[in-house]
Amino acid sequence: MDDEIAALYAERGKDPNSVGIVETQYWTCQDEPLDLECGRRLTPYTLAYETYGELSPQRDNVILIFHALSGDAHVAGYHTPTDTKPGWWDLMIGPGKPMDTNRYFVICANVLAGCKGSTGPSSINPETGRPYGLSFPLVTIGDMVRAQERLLSHLGIERLLAVVGASMGGMQALEFVVQFPERVASVLAIATAARMSTQGIAFDAIARHAIMSDPNWRQGDYYGGQPPASGLSIARMIGHITYLSEEQMTTKFGRRLQSRESYGYDMAVEFQVESYLDHQGNSFVQRFDPNSYLYITKAIDYFDLAAGRHSLVEAFSGVTAEFLVVSFTSDWLFPTHQSKELVRALQANGVRTTFLEITSDYGHDTFLLPNPELGSAVSAFLGQVAAREWAATRREDA
Amino acid sequence: MDDEIAALYAERGKDPNSVGIVETQYWTCQDEPLDLECGRRLTPYTLAYETYGELSPQRDNVILIFHALSGDAHVAGYHTPTDTKPGWWDLMIGPGKPMDTNRYFVICANVLAGCKGSTGPSSINPETGRPYGLSFPLVTIGDMVRAQERLLSHLGIERLLAVVGASMGGMQALEFVVQFPERVASVLAIATAARMSTQGIAFDAIARHAIMSDPNWRQGDYYGGQPPASGLSIARMIGHITYLSEEQMTTKFGRRLQSRESYGYDMAVEFQVESYLDHQGNSFVQRFDPNSYLYITKAIDYFDLAAGRHSLVEAFSGVTAEFLVVSFTSDWLFPTHQSKELVRALQANGVRTTFLEITSDYGHDTFLLPNPELGSAVSAFLGQVAAREWAATRREDA
Repeated sequence: MDDEIAALYAERGKDPNSVGIVETQYWTCQDEPLDLECGRRLTPYTLAYETYGELSPQRDNVILIFHALSGDAHVAGYHTPTDTKPGWWDLMIGPGKPMDTNRYFVICANVLAGCKGSTGPSSINPETGRPYGLSFPLVTIGDMVRAQERLLSHLGIERLLAVVGASMGGMQALEFVVQFPERVASVLAIATAARMSTQGIAFDAIARHAIMSDPNWRQGDYYGGQPPASGLSIARMIGHITYLSEEQMTTKFGRRLQSRESYGYDMAVEFQVESYLDHQGNSFVQRFDPNSYLYITKAIDYFDLAAGRHSLVEAFSGVTAEFLVVSFTSDWLFPTHQSKELVRALQANGVRTTFLEITSDYGHDTFLLPNPELGSAVSAFLGQVAAREWAATRREDA
Repeated sequence: MDDEIAALYAERGKDPNSVGIVETQYWTCQDEPLDLECGRRLTPYTLAYETYGELSPQRDNVILIFHALSGDAHVAGYHTPTDTKPGWWDLMIGPGKPMDTNRYFVICANVLAGCKGSTGPSSINPETGRPYGLSFPLVTIGDMVRAQERLLSHLGIERLLAVVGASMGGMQALEFVVQFPERVASVLAIATAARMSTQGIAFDAIARHAIMSDPNWRQGDYYGGQPPASGLSIARMIGHITYLSEEQMTTKFGRRLQSRESYGYDMAVEFQVESYLDHQGNSFVQRFDPNSYLYITKAIDYFDLAAGRHSLVEAFSGVTAEFLVVSFTSDWLFPTHQSKELVRALQANGVRTTFLEITSDYGHDTFLLPNPELGSAVSAFLGQVAAREWAATRREDA
C-alpha cells in the first residue's frame, strides 16, 4: 500500500490538516532493567517515539498508539519539509481528524526489537560494542508494552484516554489493558485477535525460514556486510498477499501483464501482481532489518492472551476500560470471527463493548486506507470516552 | 498430506482393491515435432505413463486422468512389493473403486516439463548432450494436452469415456475437451477453474522468486551440483498453506508446540504447524526438480481458457461432452465461485452439466483424501456416461 498512500498524498498536495513537521524523540532507560518473559534482562534500552498535539494540564487527553509489524513511531506528519510521504496513519491523526490533535495528545513508540530507533537486534550491545544480532533476547508483546508503560511514567502520564492499535498494534493494546487495567479508560482494537491464528503462524514461519535460509543471513551476524535481502524480500511478498483480499487483488491486477503485450514464455516477472509483489519486496529491504522481522514475527506468533489462564474470559477479568472492536469483512489474516471472540469474552466480563464489522474489499490493509466509516467510528468513540473521562477529571480540577 | 495418506495405507494393511504392482511405461515421439504455443518446436519428447485395467475390445472404456502440479503418472498401485505408499489417487482407482478397473481402462501421463519420466528441463537436450535447464521451451497447458493426445493416438485410442482432473489436472481436462471436443464423452473437473486467479498467480510468483533467488539455482544450470533445495522448499511450504483450509490447520495443529513444553524464546522451529511445513518442504526437495516447478507453475499461471476468445462461453462452444464439476467449500485456492463460473459458461452452451459443492474442512487437498461423497459422485457419473456411450458403441459392435 505504501506507494498508493504516497501517491494519494502527492495528489492532495499540502494537507491543511497535517500535524506538520515532527521530530522523533528518544528515551533511554539506563537505571531500571527490563525483566523479560524469556527470563533475561534488558538494560539499557531506548525507545524511539513521537508525539502529536498538546498534553492537557490535567494530563487526561493521552492516546497511545501501537504500531503493526512493519510500522514505526512516525505515525503522522513529515520529518522534513521535502518529505513526500507522511507517517503511516496520517489519515487518522491531525487537527480535525478522527484522532483530533486539537483535543488529544497522541504518542506512538517503536517497539522493542524494532529497527526504527528502539533497541533491537541491530542495536549495539554495550557489552560487546557490536550489534546484538541473535544475541538480542526474544521479546514478547508483553515485554513490548511493559517498556512502553515505563515511557509513559517517564513522561509523567498516569492514565490513558485510549490505547489504540491495529493488527499487531491491536495485540499490544489488548495486552496493555490486561497488564495495566487501571491506566486505561478505553481500548480501540482494530483487525486484531486474542492470539495469532495457526494459518498466521504458518505464514510467519515461512517468512522466517526464507530469511534464515538466505546465505547472507549468517546466523544473524550480517551487519556491516550484505544483509539477507533476498530472504526478507520473500518474507515481505508473502506478507503482502495476506494483507490484501482476493477480491481486491483481482480487481486491481487481474491477469494483466506489466509491460508486455503478450506472454514472454520465459521466467521473467510479467504479471502485474508479480511485479507489484516484487517491488514491495525490494523496497522493504531498503527500510527494514531482517533480524527485526524474525524477532517481531516471533513475538506475534507467541501472542496468546489466554495462555497461562483458564480462558480468554479470565484474561479480561480485571478490565474496566470500554472497548471498540473493529473488523473488516475481507480481512482473512485477522478475520471477523477472531474479533467476535474478543467481543464475547469482553461481554462475559460485563465490559462495555462496541463491535463494528466494516464492509470493505481491501482486506487487512483497510485500516491504513481512507475509510469514512472507520474514521467516524474512531472519532465518535473517542469523543464519548473523553466526555466521560473529562467530566470526572476536569470537575475535580475546577 | 503425503505422510497421512501413507499412514492410512499402512493402517489398512494390504488393500484388497489395489491394482497391485504396476509399471511406468514410456513413449517417445521421435518423428513428429510438437509445435508449442511459444513458437518453438520440441522433438523428440518422451511421456511417462501408467495404465490400469484392461482396454475393452471396442476401445470404449478409457479414462484419461491428468495430474496436478506435484503429481505424476503413478496414480494407483505400487511399483514394488515393498512400497509402503501407493500412487497419489489410489483411493479412487482399482477394482470396485469409483474408477472401477474392472470396467474402465485408466491412463495417466506425466506432464511435459515434469520430472517424473516425461521430457522436461532436467532431461538431456539431444543437441547438447546436457540437461536442458532453462533452454527447455516453456510449455503451456495446451501443449501438455496436445502431447497427451498424441500418446492416445499412439495407443490406438480414438475416443475417451472421460477426461478427469483436479486442480491443474482439471485445467488440462478443460483444455483437452476444448481442443479435442470430438474425442471426449465426458469431463470431470474437480477443484479447478477456467483460469488461474490473481491470488494464485501471486503465490506461484513468490514460489518462483524463492527458487530463482536461491544461489544454487544458477540460472537453472545446477544439474550435477547442489540444487536450489532451499528455494524449492520455501515454494512447497507456500503451496501447502494454500492446499489446506484455515479451519483444518486450526483443528490439526492449533498453537501446539512440536517437542517443547513451553516457548524456547529462540528462532528454532517450534510450533507444530511450523514443523509440518518444514517437513513438507524438506521431503519435497528429495522428489521434485526445482526447474520443473518453475515451468509447471508458469503453465498454470498462463492458463486462461477465455484468452484469445470473446468469452468463456465461446471457449466451450464446440463441446458436446457432459460435465461433472466439483468444488469444496473450504478450498480457497480454487474457490467454489470459480467452479460456478465454469458451470454458467457450460450451461450457456446447453452442455449437460452437474455441479456438486462438497462440504469439507480439508481445503483444496480434499480431492486427495477419502471422501465418500466425492467417490459416489465420480462412480455414478462415470456409470451413467458409460451406459450411454456403450449403448451406442456396443450395439454397433453387436
